[in-house]
Amino acid sequence: MSANVDLETAIAPILENLKESSDLIPAIAQDFASKEVLMLAWMNRDALKLTAKTGNATYWSRSRKEIWVKGSTSGHYQKIKELKYDCDSDAVLLLVEQLGAACHTGEYTCFHNSIEIGN
Amino acid sequence: MSANVDLETAIAPILENLKESSDLIPAIAQDFASKEVLMLAWMNRDALKLTAKTGNATYWSRSRKEIWVKGSTSGHYQKIKELKYDCDSDAVLLLVEQLGAACHTGEYTCFHNSIEIGN
Repeated sequence: MSANVDLETAIAPILENLKESSDLIPAIAQDFASKEVLMLAWMNRDALKLTAKTGNATYWSRSRKEIWVKGSTSGHYQKIKELKYDCDSDAVLLLVEQLGAACHTGEYTCFHNSIEIGN
Repeated sequence: MSANVDLETAIAPILENLKESSDLIPAIAQDFASKEVLMLAWMNRDALKLTAKTGNATYWSRSRKEIWVKGSTSGHYQKIKELKYDCDSDAVLLLVEQLGAACHTGEYTCFHNSIEIGN
């Protein structure tokens, strides 16, 4: 119980930017071991609370307009190792253990398109 | 000239999601060497084109409502090594050489707040 209270206190700065259920912030998932950036998704207030409480990355689907536990249909869960947030408390970085692939295409990371910038 | 045409073609999938000048997508900056995630900022159409063309990370400031070359006042430029984008072409990942600190607080990364999630 007290652990939950502490967790709610810990995420309070982020919740300040998620007062309305329609408020969204970007959440970056990064492989905690390889440090590869896996995907970017969105969180509302409930998604953030569920992520912190359950330890499974949980997002808000902007297309389906519903809470989405990553892996609930594919089995490709993201187990949270550490939750970080930025200096403005309006972006979240999840260090995760990725089960299976992060991308719905089967690629390990959603960021599999690359452009060389010459400099 | 042809290099610029090729670059415009290369970023075309992302520009499809930035048709209006008010359209914004999140851009993640990651240290190309340490792989540390440094910050999340926003890009509109012009910011993406300038980033690709100049090789310096260029964002849209939502608070100041203006194009912002990262480092133009602090000297803390981000030199682009590689530009990646995700499966939906609506998020960008910049692999950068960070000059100085990424965060305005002086911290190397904006994601310097950490919460342990017990699992």
